[in-house]
Amino acid sequence: MLRTHTCGELNINNLGQTVTLCGWVQKSRDLGGTTFIDVRDRYGLTQLVLNTESDATLRELSRTLGREFVIKVNGKVIERTNKNAKIPTGEIEIAVSDIEILNAAKIPPFLIEDETDGGEELRAKYRYLDLRRNPIRNNLVLRHKMAQEIRKYLDMLNFIEVETPVLIKSTPEGARDFVVPSRMNPGEFYALPQSPQTFKQLLMVSGFDRYFQIVKCFRDEDLRADRQPEFTQIDCEMAFITQEDILNIFEGLTRHLFKAVKGIEFNDFPRMQYADAMRLYGSDKPDIRFGMQFVELNDIVKGKGLGIFDNAELVVGINAKGCADYTRKQIDELTEWLKRPQIGATGMIYCRYNTDGTLKSSVDKFYSEDDLTNWAAAFEAEPGDLILVLAGNADKARKQLNELRLEMGSRLGLRDKNTYAPLWVLDFPLLEWDEDTERYHAMHHPFTSPKPEDIELLDTNPGDVRANAYDLVINGTEIGGGSIRIHDRALQALMFKHLGFSTEEAQKQFGFLMDAFEYGAPPHGGIAFGFDRLCSIFAGLDSIRDVIAFPKNNSGRDVMIDSPSTIADAQLNELKIKTAL
Amino acid sequence: MLRTHTCGELNINNLGQTVTLCGWVQKSRDLGGTTFIDVRDRYGLTQLVLNTESDATLRELSRTLGREFVIKVNGKVIERTNKNAKIPTGEIEIAVSDIEILNAAKIPPFLIEDETDGGEELRAKYRYLDLRRNPIRNNLVLRHKMAQEIRKYLDMLNFIEVETPVLIKSTPEGARDFVVPSRMNPGEFYALPQSPQTFKQLLMVSGFDRYFQIVKCFRDEDLRADRQPEFTQIDCEMAFITQEDILNIFEGLTRHLFKAVKGIEFNDFPRMQYADAMRLYGSDKPDIRFGMQFVELNDIVKGKGLGIFDNAELVVGINAKGCADYTRKQIDELTEWLKRPQIGATGMIYCRYNTDGTLKSSVDKFYSEDDLTNWAAAFEAEPGDLILVLAGNADKARKQLNELRLEMGSRLGLRDKNTYAPLWVLDFPLLEWDEDTERYHAMHHPFTSPKPEDIELLDTNPGDVRANAYDLVINGTEIGGGSIRIHDRALQALMFKHLGFSTEEAQKQFGFLMDAFEYGAPPHGGIAFGFDRLCSIFAGLDSIRDVIAFPKNNSGRDVMIDSPSTIADAQLNELKIKTAL
Repeated sequence: MLRTHTCGELNINNLGQTVTLCGWVQKSRDLGGTTFIDVRDRYGLTQLVLNTESDATLRELSRTLGREFVIKVNGKVIERTNKNAKIPTGEIEIAVSDIEILNAAKIPPFLIEDETDGGEELRAKYRYLDLRRNPIRNNLVLRHKMAQEIRKYLDMLNFIEVETPVLIKSTPEGARDFVVPSRMNPGEFYALPQSPQTFKQLLMVSGFDRYFQIVKCFRDEDLRADRQPEFTQIDCEMAFITQEDILNIFEGLTRHLFKAVKGIEFNDFPRMQYADAMRLYGSDKPDIRFGMQFVELNDIVKGKGLGIFDNAELVVGINAKGCADYTRKQIDELTEWLKRPQIGATGMIYCRYNTDGTLKSSVDKFYSEDDLTNWAAAFEAEPGDLILVLAGNADKARKQLNELRLEMGSRLGLRDKNTYAPLWVLDFPLLEWDEDTERYHAMHHPFTSPKPEDIELLDTNPGDVRANAYDLVINGTEIGGGSIRIHDRALQALMFKHLGFSTEEAQKQFGFLMDAFEYGAPPHGGIAFGFDRLCSIFAGLDSIRDVIAFPKNNSGRDVMIDSPSTIADAQLNELKIKTAL
Repeated sequence: MLRTHTCGELNINNLGQTVTLCGWVQKSRDLGGTTFIDVRDRYGLTQLVLNTESDATLRELSRTLGREFVIKVNGKVIERTNKNAKIPTGEIEIAVSDIEILNAAKIPPFLIEDETDGGEELRAKYRYLDLRRNPIRNNLVLRHKMAQEIRKYLDMLNFIEVETPVLIKSTPEGARDFVVPSRMNPGEFYALPQSPQTFKQLLMVSGFDRYFQIVKCFRDEDLRADRQPEFTQIDCEMAFITQEDILNIFEGLTRHLFKAVKGIEFNDFPRMQYADAMRLYGSDKPDIRFGMQFVELNDIVKGKGLGIFDNAELVVGINAKGCADYTRKQIDELTEWLKRPQIGATGMIYCRYNTDGTLKSSVDKFYSEDDLTNWAAAFEAEPGDLILVLAGNADKARKQLNELRLEMGSRLGLRDKNTYAPLWVLDFPLLEWDEDTERYHAMHHPFTSPKPEDIELLDTNPGDVRANAYDLVINGTEIGGGSIRIHDRALQALMFKHLGFSTEEAQKQFGFLMDAFEYGAPPHGGIAFGFDRLCSIFAGLDSIRDVIAFPKNNSGRDVMIDSPSTIADAQLNELKIKTAL
């Protein structure tokens, strides 16, 4: 090795040793006759001390050293007079006998420090420099550790990691496939998998019993949200199990990760019906770090002549504890916030429960203080609380109130990144109505099994059929979702029919899977976790971008390597395709 | 869980227990009043016994059960009278109280047995059934175990697994990129990586120091050989190291794998110069499970009037120990084998060292018995040996003799699949001449560093420049290769120039890497192993196909899912491409 030690490991026990370190110049201070240099590597920082008064060679060299130069130094470990208790190497320094410059460095375009002065764009272009910063590097180390622990846990439980193909077949379901022209089969295309769903089911048919894979998946969608065209899934499937087994095993995985990586232990994860999640939180992924559950007011507010309530399908509100002192201006600002197009509320009603016990609402003309006392009771409100109410179409009002609840949770400091509140959401609907195409779509995917007791509703009330489907939610973010699958050809064919496939289409696209179900398919089910998202939650980040070594920007571009890019005509010709701009 | 035990775990210690098993019907034998069923899962086989005489329900059910039906059975563990010592469950059977059919099965198109009657094509179409067979399943379990052990070893040594992007940029080097049209950036394309080479080098520039990844790579080449368009690499890179460090650490990884997975221990791996490998074996990946090294005869055979020797650049042979009793017919057949177009030899000279001590060659007209005694001495031949000699252009003769040596090794049983002979081949040439394009190509890739002492030859004798490049070979198969990389912008630019890139081209394609070298790039190097190949060697297989769950055929097709396939015009339109057939 070029070095005897890393920059993170020397301490008082190494005093007197002659060592060789390699690393990057973090900073250099010339104190007239003595130069101090901090040298950095992945493992830490070590202070070098150069006697530049007596040693002319060192003096000359030390003057050429800039930030981020790569150096190799020999020297002796000595005790520091000015100790730094913040770093593990802070009690020692290296009295340098000689320095070799392994590579020079131009001045970096931004500071390589925990807090940098580089903007997002610049850091993306020089991602290799951004990755030198501790916070980003720590994220990737965390990610590595999480992947190792996931594999350790699943291996212990007899899961086998099987690699499924990346070059697969395009399907009309879900669209948004990335496709790959085949040179050997002109006019034909592979698709990149949005998930290894059908392959993992085939592995169950093959008897693999307990499968997992940490695997790249691809989805060509507009990247408005915090999404990446390529993302990583922890993909899992089991045979001969019930839904309860899946919940237990993957709750176990999540606990194991929290314990091993963050030292956090949990009681049993709470569970909630999808229907309750929508009713109490207006979301299928409630953030239950805080309460502030929805209270429905139809029974107590209707019939008093207030049109927006009387004409509403649903009147629903939350209690913002301790917010009675919100000023009129603050409330107006909140109302404006709700009216933004992203949320689209038409207005907000409030009722202040003043600390003196009086109640005051924005609709006092219609509701007496007695009426408002009923409101307060419904919310279990106390003096000092502020009740916020929305009304209208039930789905919309719930969606809007969900946004408001999360916002109030943030404003009240109830959403601490270091608090983790996992939750299982169960019994999702099988189908959801799509306004655009005017037909039902699979809420999860077409392989999800309906609850046996609901199958008869498929013909009459498709929207009411519940699925054996479940999501794992942490702090309001869906980090995993899965289902018990269909393993019967007839039922699978029925599902495709209800999703608007003709028999021929279904056979053409998914015939291999339906055929497989006829050769002895066991009952099976599984789950997939969004690994990027899970890492970002563990890292306490809002974005997944900084748990990914080389992410793409919102236009799907890697600005560092400048990709995508045009390709040569010769290559297009060989692939038998043309661009049609 | 649906079951209390797997089909592989019950034994004499479980006698009397009431158990529930799930699995596939392997076979069923009705012995009149008693039916025996073997039920199979991933873990093993268990015998069920059904008293069909007394139990009418069981009798009816047992008659409907065909091969590969999926069943769930309850029963009691009892001792077998007819024990089967070959399987772990062979001392017990289950006295079945009831059976549930979880799924019926059509008659499978081929036997689900260790030896099957299914042809390759049929098994590929029904891969999910082929994967039920023990040999194939065991290969995938082996692969899983190998991946786990690789990660365990590298994690222990502080390597971090970092995921690099799959959607990258197409480069002219190597061509044969799979490309992916970008919907968000019309007219532009991503490429799938042939390896994460540049990204892992950037991670070194970032200070990640010890990186690895088990990662899918892609190459769109004609699949004549045992290749797959998508394959898996164990990709590794280190900074602040010498070549010696890399050899030691990855020899360590290989040893660890052999020890942990196969219980085999090795002495230090032998090392060989590329030049010696070519001279002694005519190959850069010699199979050293056996000797039979080449002997060059120019000095002792020339000048006796035999044209094919006198006019040859090289006369070179091997000693086939103990083959002196080869008949004329056998020798002719071997000569014909050498003349096939794949090998292309024009002929073969032989010399028999008979057991009576006499020497007899196919060129006795030109060489006396004294001459032949010199031949024998050069080969250290003994009575009973057969000397086989080729002549001609040196490169061609060596290549042909390599084929002959391997063939003779196989015929003599010297290439046992359970014997493993690893070997490092060192000091590969930096460049190789390409007849087609009439210019030099990088033998490894353009990022490989030349040996410092050879750099001055770049201008005068480019073909003689040696690289800091190394391959790990096992049993004549290259399983890994790597190099110490260039980390200096000027040297990298010089390399591109020698490879025929203009300055502009080099900057356009690899500017990001050369730029990165200017911001403090450490000395670094690495290696990549072909994971599919490594698994096939561990599994004792000639082909990589059966260590891959869902391989493609020689036309790059997945015949099970019927991919690649045509895609809808709407999709082409959205991607702004057209097919041009």
